[in-house]
Amino acid sequence: MPVPLTKESDVDVLVIGAGPAGLMCAQGLTRAGVNVRIIDKRPGQVAAGQADGIQPRTIEVLQSYGLAERLLREANQMHMAAFYEPSPQGGIHRTGRAPDVNAPTARYPFEVTLHQGGIESIFVDCLRSLGKEIERPAIPDSIDVSNDPVVLKDPHAHAVKVVVKHLDTPQGRGDTEVIRAKYVVGADGAHSWVRKEMGIAMEGEQTDYVWGVVDMIPDTDFPDIRNRCAIHSENGSCMIVPREGDVVRLYIQLTDADVRNVTTGRVDMEKFSAEKLLEVAKKSFYPYHIKAAGPVHWWTIYIIGQRVAARFSSHERVFIAGDACHTHSPKAGQGMNASMNDTHNLIWKLTHVLRGWADMLLLKTYELERRKYAQDLIAFDRKFAALFSGKPKSADNPDGVDQEEFLAAFRTFGAFTSGIGVHYARTIITDPTHQSSAANLVVGQRVLPHAVVRAADARPFEVQDLLPADTRFKVVVFTGDIADAGQRERVNVFAGKLDREGGFMRKRKEAYDVLAVCKTRKEDVNYTDVPAVLRPHWSKVVLDDVDVTGKIGGGIYETYGVGPEGAVVVVRPDGYVGVVTPLEDVGSLERYFEGFDAKS
Amino acid sequence: MPVPLTKESDVDVLVIGAGPAGLMCAQGLTRAGVNVRIIDKRPGQVAAGQADGIQPRTIEVLQSYGLAERLLREANQMHMAAFYEPSPQGGIHRTGRAPDVNAPTARYPFEVTLHQGGIESIFVDCLRSLGKEIERPAIPDSIDVSNDPVVLKDPHAHAVKVVVKHLDTPQGRGDTEVIRAKYVVGADGAHSWVRKEMGIAMEGEQTDYVWGVVDMIPDTDFPDIRNRCAIHSENGSCMIVPREGDVVRLYIQLTDADVRNVTTGRVDMEKFSAEKLLEVAKKSFYPYHIKAAGPVHWWTIYIIGQRVAARFSSHERVFIAGDACHTHSPKAGQGMNASMNDTHNLIWKLTHVLRGWADMLLLKTYELERRKYAQDLIAFDRKFAALFSGKPKSADNPDGVDQEEFLAAFRTFGAFTSGIGVHYARTIITDPTHQSSAANLVVGQRVLPHAVVRAADARPFEVQDLLPADTRFKVVVFTGDIADAGQRERVNVFAGKLDREGGFMRKRKEAYDVLAVCKTRKEDVNYTDVPAVLRPHWSKVVLDDVDVTGKIGGGIYETYGVGPEGAVVVVRPDGYVGVVTPLEDVGSLERYFEGFDAKS
Repeated sequence: MPVPLTKESDVDVLVIGAGPAGLMCAQGLTRAGVNVRIIDKRPGQVAAGQADGIQPRTIEVLQSYGLAERLLREANQMHMAAFYEPSPQGGIHRTGRAPDVNAPTARYPFEVTLHQGGIESIFVDCLRSLGKEIERPAIPDSIDVSNDPVVLKDPHAHAVKVVVKHLDTPQGRGDTEVIRAKYVVGADGAHSWVRKEMGIAMEGEQTDYVWGVVDMIPDTDFPDIRNRCAIHSENGSCMIVPREGDVVRLYIQLTDADVRNVTTGRVDMEKFSAEKLLEVAKKSFYPYHIKAAGPVHWWTIYIIGQRVAARFSSHERVFIAGDACHTHSPKAGQGMNASMNDTHNLIWKLTHVLRGWADMLLLKTYELERRKYAQDLIAFDRKFAALFSGKPKSADNPDGVDQEEFLAAFRTFGAFTSGIGVHYARTIITDPTHQSSAANLVVGQRVLPHAVVRAADARPFEVQDLLPADTRFKVVVFTGDIADAGQRERVNVFAGKLDREGGFMRKRKEAYDVLAVCKTRKEDVNYTDVPAVLRPHWSKVVLDDVDVTGKIGGGIYETYGVGPEGAVVVVRPDGYVGVVTPLEDVGSLERYFEGFDAKS
Repeated sequence: MPVPLTKESDVDVLVIGAGPAGLMCAQGLTRAGVNVRIIDKRPGQVAAGQADGIQPRTIEVLQSYGLAERLLREANQMHMAAFYEPSPQGGIHRTGRAPDVNAPTARYPFEVTLHQGGIESIFVDCLRSLGKEIERPAIPDSIDVSNDPVVLKDPHAHAVKVVVKHLDTPQGRGDTEVIRAKYVVGADGAHSWVRKEMGIAMEGEQTDYVWGVVDMIPDTDFPDIRNRCAIHSENGSCMIVPREGDVVRLYIQLTDADVRNVTTGRVDMEKFSAEKLLEVAKKSFYPYHIKAAGPVHWWTIYIIGQRVAARFSSHERVFIAGDACHTHSPKAGQGMNASMNDTHNLIWKLTHVLRGWADMLLLKTYELERRKYAQDLIAFDRKFAALFSGKPKSADNPDGVDQEEFLAAFRTFGAFTSGIGVHYARTIITDPTHQSSAANLVVGQRVLPHAVVRAADARPFEVQDLLPADTRFKVVVFTGDIADAGQRERVNVFAGKLDREGGFMRKRKEAYDVLAVCKTRKEDVNYTDVPAVLRPHWSKVVLDDVDVTGKIGGGIYETYGVGPEGAVVVVRPDGYVGVVTPLEDVGSLERYFEGFDAKS
C-alpha cells in the first residue's frame, strides 16, 4: 500500500473563518449536533479594536442561543444619543438628546458595545463547552465543487473538496489535509478567498469618505462622553461610541489633505498616527477638552466602501457570509450584526437538509433572504454615510447637512440601525396568505417580544425565550379561552386534526415544538384542560394575563392581532414568522411544511 | 529542639460548618480579603433534599454579593399559592389562588426553591473562584476562649484556641492542628458542638406536630402541582413546594398513630417509608390522583421544634449562627434564610473590626439584631404551624381551623415569609433621629429597591445593585435638581463640609462609597455638574427619571420620601439604612460614624 502523502477526511460542514459570522455558524451547527469543523488563518483571537456595536435584534438572536446573558454582563450599553453642532459662540454646543434606539418593539431597547475579542470569546467558550475547538492557524489552499449533476443533487454527497494547510502542527511544518465536505461556509472576511475562488463579484464601489478610529480611555469634561454622540463641527464630523469599562471609541472624519499622498492620491497610513487623529478630534470638541488618559488601545483609518456580492452561494454547496458578501460603513453599526445574522439564517437550513428533513431547495432561501437584506442595508448606508460625512449647513455652506435632516434620518432609520426591521419576502418558508389571523405578527418578520405568564405556576416569561433557536419549528397555538367549554371543543377538534395519522406532526415529531397560549386568567386556568398534543410538558401552556404583581404581561392577543377565536402561528427556527392560519385551517399548515419537506 | 506533635497556625476567623450560614460567612469574609478558614465534618456536599425555599429578601442579599444570577437560572420560582379544603362532594376542591409573596416592595416578588446541594454549590464555586477551599472532613476537638481581660479587649489578639482533627489527610490518619483564631463562627447546625462547648442553652420546646417530607417527580392530574399549595383535607394537611426541574416536594401531616411507637411514645423512623408517606398523601389529594413517576429522590420525617439560643456569642469572640441558634418549622420557608442572613449581618462587622476601622462594640450588635429577629420568627412560626397543622373547621369539628383565618394569616405574615419585614431596632448603627428627611427609607430596614437612570449614559439600574455588599458604607446623597443653580450651591456647600480636613470621609476614604441621586431630567443633566467629591467616577451619578423607553425608573424621591431639598442616607454594608440626615446636617453623619469608630 502506498503511504498517503496527505491526511484525508470527511465532514458535513466546513466553516472557513472564525470571525463573528463563522463563529455564529459553528456554534449553531455544533449545538444542533451537525458534524462541523471551523478553521481560521489567524493564530489567535483579536485582542482589541475592530467590530462595531451589537444591535437590539442581534441581542435577541444571541439570547435565542443562550448567549446574551454574558454579553449583557460584559458589554457597555448605549441608551442615549446626543447631537452637537457648531455654536454661534464658536466651537460646538448640544442641540439635543434622543433615545439611541428608535424601535418601539425592541426587547433590548439599546445597543451594546464590546471589543471584538470579547464577543469572539463568548462564541469560543460556547464552542469549547460543546467540545469544539477552532483549528488555527490553517489556510485553505484549493476548493473544488463537483460538476457531476447527480452528486450535486444528493444532499448527503461530499460535493466539495477543500485542501487545507495546518500551519501550526506538532511537527512544526505545514501539514496538508484534504477535506471532503457536504457544504462549505466561507466566512473569511472582506478579502474573502472563498468568494474569489468561486468567482463571485462584488457590486458597488468605494466612497471618498475617509475616517479615523481610535479606542482609548479619555480625560475630558465633555458631558456626553458616555452617550453615542454625533458631533458636526466646522472642523469636521466626529462620532463617539462608548465601550466597555471606561473605554471610548472616537470616529473622526479626515480630509484628503490629512490622509492622501499628494503624488499618488492614495490613502497613506504612514502619514498618520493616533496622536494626529486625536489632534483632529480636539479641534472638533472645542470648547470641551479631550485627551487620552494613558496609552491609546487601538487605532486605524479606513475608506468607506459599500458593496454586495453578486451571489451568496455556488450551487447551494459553498455559501459566503458576513464581510465576504457585504461591506459598509462602520458608524451605522451594521457590520458584525449583518454577519452574525447571515449565518443565523443559514444554520437551521443546513441542519434540516443534513438531517434529511428538508429538500435542498430550502438552501436557496439563504441568498433570497440575506442578499436582499444586504442590498437594503447598503442603500440605507449610502444615505447615512453621506449625511454623516457632510459639512454642517451654515451661512457659508448653504448646501451643507441640515441638523433637522440628520435627526430625521436618525429616527427614520431606527428600524434599520436596530436590526428589527428585517422583513423576509414571500418564499416557500414565508407564507402570508392568512396574515389576518394574527394581523400584527407579520410573516417574514421576527416574533414580537411579549411577556406571558405560565399557566402551571404563574411565572412570567418573555415569549421569545420559549421559542429558542433549537432548530425546531414552533407551532404556537392561540387557543382562546380554554376555560370556556365551547372554545375548548374547537381546540380539541384542532388538536385531533393536528395529531392525525400521516400528518406532519406525526411524520417528524422531532422537528416541531408546540406552545399553547390561552386567553384565560391565571386564577382560573387548569393547564390540564389543554389537549395533551398541545401540551408536551406542563411548562408548555402560557397565558395572556399579567403576573401576580400586575406589572408584567397581559395583552399578547391584542399586540399580535389575534382574536378570541384563536389562531396558529408557525415560528421558524430562526425566530421569524413562517405562516399564520386560523385554528380550523390545518390544511394550510400541512401545505406549508410540505413545500420544503424532503422528498423521500 | 523537640519535634512538634501537632501543626499550629493562626487565622483571623475560623468558620466551623459549611452549611448555608457558614458558606455565606466564608464567601463574604474571603471576598473582603479577611484571613479566614472554613472546616466541615461532612466529606462532601449534600446531594439532595434538606433546606427550604429562598425568600425574596435573601435573593436580594445574594444579589448584593453577585450570586443571584446563577441561583435564578438554576432554581424554580414560586409565584402563586393555591388553597384547597374539604369539598362538600367529598375529597378536596380549590377555594382560591393568591400571590405566594405578599410584599409589595419585594424586588423579586417570588420565592425560589433549589435542593441544598445546588445552593451550596453556588457558594463553593464562588469560594473556589476566590481561591478558597473548604477543609473537609475535619472536626473540632476542643475550643478555649482566653480569660485574660487584656487579650479579650484587643481586637487583634488570637483569643480563641481550637483543636481540629483533619480526618482525610494524605497520610490517611487524623492529623491534629491547633488553630489560634481571633474570632470563631459556629455555624455547625441544630446540634451545634460550638454552642454546647460555649454552654449556651436553647430556649423553647418541641411541638407535637409530626410531618413527613418527600421529594419526587410526580405523576398527577392535580392542576396546582407547580404552585405552592396548602391542602386541608379531612385526612390531614399537605403542602406542595414545587422545586427545580419537574421535582415536587410534599410536606405531609402525620398522626401519632402513623409514626409513634405504641410502647415508648417516641417517633419511630422504622415504622416509615416513602411509600407509606405517599399513601397518606394520596388520600389527601382525592379526587385527584398522585404518585411518584420513578424513584423517590429523598424523604424524611420530623417533629417541629421552635427554639432560640439564649446568647448568640461568647465574649464577642465566638459567635453562633444559623440552625445553631434557632430552629423552627420548615414549611414557612425560614430556616436557610435566617441562617444566611445571620452571617450576612456578621461579615461586615468582623471585617471592620479586623481592619482596625471599628471598635469591638460593633460586634455586640450582631446578637442585638439577630436574636431579636429569631425570637420574632419563632413567635410567628408558632402561629403559622398551629394553623397549618390544625384540622379544618367543619360541622363535626367547630373548633378547627377556618379557611378564612388561614388565608388572613398567610397574607398578614407576608412581610415575614418574604424576609423583607426585618427591622433592626435603634443601636449605635441605626439612628432614626432625622428619619423625616427620607421618611419612607426606614432606618433599620433594608433599602427599598427602585430603578434609577444613570446620568452619564441614561442606562437604567436597580439602585440596590449600586449598593453592593462590598463592606463599605454607602453615602447616598440626594442632591435635588443639580441643574438648578441655587440647589447646586447648597450641594457644593455640603460637599465642602463632607470633604473637610479631619472629617470621616478624609479619615478613612476606603470605608465609604458615594452615590449622588439627582432630581434632574436625563435630557438636561450634565453629570459633570455634580461636585467631584460626590462623583468619584462618572458612573456614580444617577437620576430620578424614567429611562428612554419611559417604562423603567422615575419617582425614587417620592418613594423614599425625600423632598426636592435633598437628603443624605447612609446605607450599611449589609444594605440596611443606618442613618438619615438633611443636607445641612453633616454633624449628624460625623457623630454616627464616630459612635463605633475604632479608638486609636
